[in-house]
Amino acid sequence: VFVNRMPRYEVLTPEALDTIERGWRRLVSEIGVQFDHPRALGLFAGAGQAVDGDRVRFDPDWVLEQVAQAPSEFSMRARNPEHDLVIGGDHMIFAPSQGPPFVRLGDERRDGTLADLERLIMLTQVFDELDTPGGNICEPDDLPLDSRHLVQNLALITLSDKVFEGDPFSAGNARDSIRMGEILFGGREQIEERPVMFANANVNSPLRYDPRMLDSMLEYSAAGQAVLVTPFLLMGAMAPVTIAAALAQQTAEVLTGISLLQLVNPGNPSIMGSFLSAIDMQSGSPAFGGPESALGVYASGQIARRYGLPWRSGGGGLTASQTVDAQAGTEAFNTMISAFLAGANVVWQGAGWLEGGLVNCFEKFVIDVEMIQLLRVQFTPPVIDEEALAFGAHEEVGPGGHFLGAVHTLERFRECFYRPMIASTENFERWTKKGSLDQNARAAKLWPELLERYERPPLDDAIEAELTEFVERRTRELGDEVVLHS
Amino acid sequence: VFVNRMPRYEVLTPEALDTIERGWRRLVSEIGVQFDHPRALGLFAGAGQAVDGDRVRFDPDWVLEQVAQAPSEFSMRARNPEHDLVIGGDHMIFAPSQGPPFVRLGDERRDGTLADLERLIMLTQVFDELDTPGGNICEPDDLPLDSRHLVQNLALITLSDKVFEGDPFSAGNARDSIRMGEILFGGREQIEERPVMFANANVNSPLRYDPRMLDSMLEYSAAGQAVLVTPFLLMGAMAPVTIAAALAQQTAEVLTGISLLQLVNPGNPSIMGSFLSAIDMQSGSPAFGGPESALGVYASGQIARRYGLPWRSGGGGLTASQTVDAQAGTEAFNTMISAFLAGANVVWQGAGWLEGGLVNCFEKFVIDVEMIQLLRVQFTPPVIDEEALAFGAHEEVGPGGHFLGAVHTLERFRECFYRPMIASTENFERWTKKGSLDQNARAAKLWPELLERYERPPLDDAIEAELTEFVERRTRELGDEVVLHS
Repeated sequence: VFVNRMPRYEVLTPEALDTIERGWRRLVSEIGVQFDHPRALGLFAGAGQAVDGDRVRFDPDWVLEQVAQAPSEFSMRARNPEHDLVIGGDHMIFAPSQGPPFVRLGDERRDGTLADLERLIMLTQVFDELDTPGGNICEPDDLPLDSRHLVQNLALITLSDKVFEGDPFSAGNARDSIRMGEILFGGREQIEERPVMFANANVNSPLRYDPRMLDSMLEYSAAGQAVLVTPFLLMGAMAPVTIAAALAQQTAEVLTGISLLQLVNPGNPSIMGSFLSAIDMQSGSPAFGGPESALGVYASGQIARRYGLPWRSGGGGLTASQTVDAQAGTEAFNTMISAFLAGANVVWQGAGWLEGGLVNCFEKFVIDVEMIQLLRVQFTPPVIDEEALAFGAHEEVGPGGHFLGAVHTLERFRECFYRPMIASTENFERWTKKGSLDQNARAAKLWPELLERYERPPLDDAIEAELTEFVERRTRELGDEVVLHS
Repeated sequence: VFVNRMPRYEVLTPEALDTIERGWRRLVSEIGVQFDHPRALGLFAGAGQAVDGDRVRFDPDWVLEQVAQAPSEFSMRARNPEHDLVIGGDHMIFAPSQGPPFVRLGDERRDGTLADLERLIMLTQVFDELDTPGGNICEPDDLPLDSRHLVQNLALITLSDKVFEGDPFSAGNARDSIRMGEILFGGREQIEERPVMFANANVNSPLRYDPRMLDSMLEYSAAGQAVLVTPFLLMGAMAPVTIAAALAQQTAEVLTGISLLQLVNPGNPSIMGSFLSAIDMQSGSPAFGGPESALGVYASGQIARRYGLPWRSGGGGLTASQTVDAQAGTEAFNTMISAFLAGANVVWQGAGWLEGGLVNCFEKFVIDVEMIQLLRVQFTPPVIDEEALAFGAHEEVGPGGHFLGAVHTLERFRECFYRPMIASTENFERWTKKGSLDQNARAAKLWPELLERYERPPLDDAIEAELTEFVERRTRELGDEVVLHS
């Protein structure tokens, strides 16, 4: 688990933050937010907010009172206590890509399968740098849609011992996910005491929550689980084309959504989501890893801290690139370092993302993890003290000398520098002799080796049997044929 | 010309900066610095510093008094006034890679030639983002070594109208470069009034200046030209393996070198160089774009500001990669964004660098320029005011709507977002149909097109004749056959 002790990169003045606050206050009070769900509307009306059809106009001060109930930091329980998480403060946690329908392995690009999902969960388990598999690291397209979440949850729980994400796509899926959490941890009380799963709710921006997301938000908050409320704002499509407007809108959407969670369960662990980018005005396609999204991340960190909320940056390895090329490296790194600079607490989409999220690429998966490894070193404050000045090494070596053989070097050479996993410093001759493999080709050789290092974490037989029985029963109830694993 | 109005990313506490100051004070006073040049030693002795053989031990307060004479900001004159430069403050200027013996064009990797150098100067001239060609963007290996600097200078002066770099490799080369500046600008007085060229002096670290670099430093400072004093510190080789020690050493080397320039010419424009990275302790090869060099850049900015010096970050597109892959994108971007975060005034090696600087790659050249374009937008503070909140757009669109057709969008869609030059947002089908070209392949198509847009900047016939005559005469004096261009 990484704790980011480096300074935050803050780009908004206090006056700019005030302007954004005026913006979201006006949006929530004058335009209002659409909540397409009778129960949500009833809760808001009961709390004295102005409900007109499915539109709610808010008292902004009431919104802030609700948000103030959400903890600024909370812990989450994993089935392996070594993988418990702290969300908030200086803590940063990382999840791989979520939701891609396609996978890429080398030059092969095809629909994702359960076997792919299992391998991606196993790769997540192998890496200390990934704190949670999340949920659907890829969509297992070979499974029937209605019962897919059950098999996915079973894979997440049995192949990994890290905190996982519940399925957010319907009330029923949410209830099934929560029930599986209860089985795993010994009952409702256990999971209410300390959340054991994430649930991500994407806002239907602009300013609208749809029935399925609201169903899911109501279920997960009733069970006290950690809900990420994430506006996905592509400026020019779901938001105006100015960063100021997009930030005000993002804040309006997040704070009203979190207000609802607090109405259901005061103090519910809630995470401010942000996912701000632009559309390419020529192609109409989304752009990722560009300047607008970086500025959005820097600013979102400041907004989250202003309102005392743990927050998620859109993603850590985002790119619009179709392949693992220099563009993918550049864009992914820009989104990843932005999360570190801005002090994001939760970094979703942190490994594997290609093609604007349509693809989870196995090669990029390990390359992105390498970026996290690099940045964990880069965002560790260097030790600057008398001993680190190493005056003795200079006395030993002297002007014009060489430090390679110095005692100071020999005592430290194994641990003193960051060592990359895939990046190469080999000279051209040696690199050519070894086949002229670029980073993508080297990654293609590495991930199967890493999978071989995978060990299935132990799980109590009785619990596994109960989970399996539950998945079998629910799958049959949903009218699907039972498949437990690939 | 870019002015970086964003905040600086500062990672050292005031106490850490004090510790580093204690470090360099002890180094310069107790270990001392070797200046292998009678005239330099004479100047230091004359100023009361302790000279013992070729070792000088300094009074650190005297060093700071000397450094205080260097301007914290100065301007430079280009032959096209639109390309005049300001060095220091919030200004950032960019130069392409300097010194690679090899070039790479697509899959071809070979020795650099005069024709390559000419094309690289022309590409530099085409891009507004590159403020100076520097000097040897690649080494023209088909020219005789003794007179190479003359042909190189002639190419720099005739093919570009931007500030250039004089040759630093000997006193004679420096005098020839200065003389060509005098011819171009109408005499010694003109170039002394305001510097017209850079000269880069690499320290022979640790703590040593060699005779050729000192020759060059003495010549250029006597002529009032802008001297970059750059320790090239690969930790583990030319510096101890701790960042604190490397920073103290870097400061010791830079400040004593700049003291010498100020002795020769009080007030001489001087730039603190920094180029700090690590060696890969397994391969023994240098690493670039990793966490150590990023931390070195962040810290170097703080040190430069403490001593009131304009400063150069090592480079802007550094990578150890052998090819234009995801590693190259990642490492180049990490070094480039570090320069922006730390507020570097001069970014050398900003385009084309591959293989740790052994290669100037034409494809990477344009990809690196795209990074500068991207970061210039990313490091422009976003406008946050009432108008930018775009409340009217929300009134027009409403919850659940779409902003693509909104008046606010239509009025701004051409200019509102960064538009990449080579990066692609095309969907997979379209990208495949167009040949599945990765960023490197697209760059290979782009740079020849950009070269076609090149226009030779006008130059007074008499001046060009005098320059040509000088080059011919000096080439013959040096015993070489005259070659003026490819």
